[in-house]
Amino acid sequence: MPKISEKGLQMPASPIRKLTPFADKAKAAGKKVYHLNIGQPDIATPEGMLSAVKNIDFNVWAYTPSEGTLAYRTKLTEYYNKLGYNIKPENILVTVGGSEAITIAMQTCVNEGDEIIIPEPFYANYNGFACMSNVVVKPILSYIENGFALPPIAEFEKLITPKTKAIIICNPNNPTGYLYSKEELEALKALCLKYDLFLFSDEAYREFCYDGREFISPMHLDGLDENVVVMDTVSKRYSACGARLGCLITKNAAVIASGLKFAQARLSPGMVEQIAGTAAVDTPDSYFEEVNKEYTLRRDTLVNRLNSMEGVFCPNPGGAFYVVAKLPIDDADAFCQWMLESFAYNNATVMMAPATGFYSSPSTGKNEVRMAYVLNTTDLNAAMDCLEKALTEYPGRTL
Amino acid sequence: MPKISEKGLQMPASPIRKLTPFADKAKAAGKKVYHLNIGQPDIATPEGMLSAVKNIDFNVWAYTPSEGTLAYRTKLTEYYNKLGYNIKPENILVTVGGSEAITIAMQTCVNEGDEIIIPEPFYANYNGFACMSNVVVKPILSYIENGFALPPIAEFEKLITPKTKAIIICNPNNPTGYLYSKEELEALKALCLKYDLFLFSDEAYREFCYDGREFISPMHLDGLDENVVVMDTVSKRYSACGARLGCLITKNAAVIASGLKFAQARLSPGMVEQIAGTAAVDTPDSYFEEVNKEYTLRRDTLVNRLNSMEGVFCPNPGGAFYVVAKLPIDDADAFCQWMLESFAYNNATVMMAPATGFYSSPSTGKNEVRMAYVLNTTDLNAAMDCLEKALTEYPGRTL
Ligand SMILES: Cc1ncc(COP(=O)(O)O)c(C=O)c1O
Ligand SMILES: Cc1ncc(COP(=O)(O)O)c(C=O)c1O
Repeated sequence: MPKISEKGLQMPASPIRKLTPFADKAKAAGKKVYHLNIGQPDIATPEGMLSAVKNIDFNVWAYTPSEGTLAYRTKLTEYYNKLGYNIKPENILVTVGGSEAITIAMQTCVNEGDEIIIPEPFYANYNGFACMSNVVVKPILSYIENGFALPPIAEFEKLITPKTKAIIICNPNNPTGYLYSKEELEALKALCLKYDLFLFSDEAYREFCYDGREFISPMHLDGLDENVVVMDTVSKRYSACGARLGCLITKNAAVIASGLKFAQARLSPGMVEQIAGTAAVDTPDSYFEEVNKEYTLRRDTLVNRLNSMEGVFCPNPGGAFYVVAKLPIDDADAFCQWMLESFAYNNATVMMAPATGFYSSPSTGKNEVRMAYVLNTTDLNAAMDCLEKALTEYPGRTL
Repeated sequence: MPKISEKGLQMPASPIRKLTPFADKAKAAGKKVYHLNIGQPDIATPEGMLSAVKNIDFNVWAYTPSEGTLAYRTKLTEYYNKLGYNIKPENILVTVGGSEAITIAMQTCVNEGDEIIIPEPFYANYNGFACMSNVVVKPILSYIENGFALPPIAEFEKLITPKTKAIIICNPNNPTGYLYSKEELEALKALCLKYDLFLFSDEAYREFCYDGREFISPMHLDGLDENVVVMDTVSKRYSACGARLGCLITKNAAVIASGLKFAQARLSPGMVEQIAGTAAVDTPDSYFEEVNKEYTLRRDTLVNRLNSMEGVFCPNPGGAFYVVAKLPIDDADAFCQWMLESFAYNNATVMMAPATGFYSSPSTGKNEVRMAYVLNTTDLNAAMDCLEKALTEYPGRTL
């Protein structure tokens, strides 16, 4: 029997899917499971986007250009230029989700064996993409005590070697919800210019900023055009995760030219999705206002409930729809599994993502969990009732 | 300015897109360009597939499981088991086009630096996927004289080293249209078993077999379950190239388990597409009968016209919708460019793909072109009028 590859063996499995079999078993046994484990929002996709799908009027479902249709890229510039990105269609490569934008950015910009610095905890799939591209991830620890703010630049400098090629930030952050300040971005800019590094900016959660705080992108900073590569997606912006539509944006022409070759190999992004994505740009502001009001309410509910529990600490994040909370437990993996396997309150339980999956060292984040507030406040409160109760019963509690 | 990666530099550009700027210029100058250069059929997508898209009735465009929905995978088994593949949903990973199935197969099965043997001329993007995965392509020459039949097994054996991990066949073949016989597949089977190799079977053109000839897959051969990985797509089968929906099929559980990790990193295939793909399985046989009648007519038209031209030789292929023809010219790249830049007949010209893009050695296939018969016979005849005339005028003609 032929053997699979070393890479096939090394490729990390998705940590947030590890507990799925236990959730399935709980559900099969009739337990209600509140899913706070994944970033699949329950928010409705904008009407305009869905109508665009329902109203397709072609006979041949054809390839589009590998870089995306000119119509879609042109429409996207409207969206981005309103944000002040000052881009043209030729600065955009349309991709299959933000996921493909990340893959193309890594393959295009980073040599095999070279290093990318990423503040951790970070989006776990960066590890998978790095594995696929033979890129080495150098994590730099951020801390729950200060809400997972950007680590001091001096800490970055300690990690920089001749092999360092890029920094990835995810802003607002998954899993922490942290929203970077102008000062933090300016500090990163100086660092990237000093060491000639790419700055990959994963902006999947750009639309989700709370308390009147402004989203700032490295695209807003002067003199960084050749360094910044934005990796974006419609998945969260329009609650259209299943559309698999994203893009890579950069003013670095060499990155676009090389990225296009990777895009050509896989021929085309989705055609119907680009039509829907074009319509999505006309989503009224009121949609985002309502969604953000809803998420703010949920965040406040979740953070308040968590911080009112004994021994629990949860910073109040400025964006995205995740929180990382510290719990009075011995081991988040064991606890999350126990919640599914051995616990119920009102015949219900909660599925959360152990934060260990977002840290590189297996001992870090052992008493932290990530929760996505993708449920309405009634369900969130019910989920918090479960958690509160569970923390008094869990055999490995540390209080 | 940070530099792009070595891989970004080495990644091959798509050879069939190289001449696009010349075609654009010709069109801008008012010339009609008959596109025989790419495999984008003009055939209508089945009604049922398009209605499925128009009738979507969800509010949240959500992720599906990374391996594809159970509903779609189950429906697919209906399609494949009618063909005699004898598979279960768990033998299928739904992918973003056949392209992603190829990427996942390579990454999962072949170590970096290891070798894949591919009969050439071959689908040019295999080079791109191999570059992405650091896999070495070992081409093995097939010849226009015998219609590009499988090279003798002894020739394969000469290429086999301890690093050989897989063979790719594309059946029916792009670019040659060659349809492999049962005997050829049996010979490959013996070879793969003898040397413990994966057999990657790219079956994008499975539905397009002519003259009553039967399609045979390595999936039909006994005792090869652990070796065969099928890479499939709805792109050509249902003329739904823009759907970006494919799949990887194998009975090798380790390949599925590892492939799933790559699938998890990119989260999900398209949701609307899987709904459409589910509907597509119920496409009536009459659709394929009509399409195949049309393609047979086109192939016959094209092959007859070509072989009636002085100095031209074109084998009559058993499948797909491509032919490779030998022309009385010095250099196919120069000729194809000249057709766009400097030639017109009735204010029209033809865009073809120089066959050099499908061979590894730059000197091979220099007098061959690939044509896709994706136009109706009226247009095909008009295109052949152009070509016939061009061959009498081209400065580099060899007759
Ligand atoms: C930080 C971050 N980046 C990228 C992605 C990729 O999303 P997609 O491929 O759906 O665009 C996600 C999805 O959860 C994410 O959280
Ligand atoms: C031989 C072959 N394999 C795979 C593909 C990939 O097709 P897709 O990614 O559209 O499924 C093509 C497309 O032309 C092809 O010709």
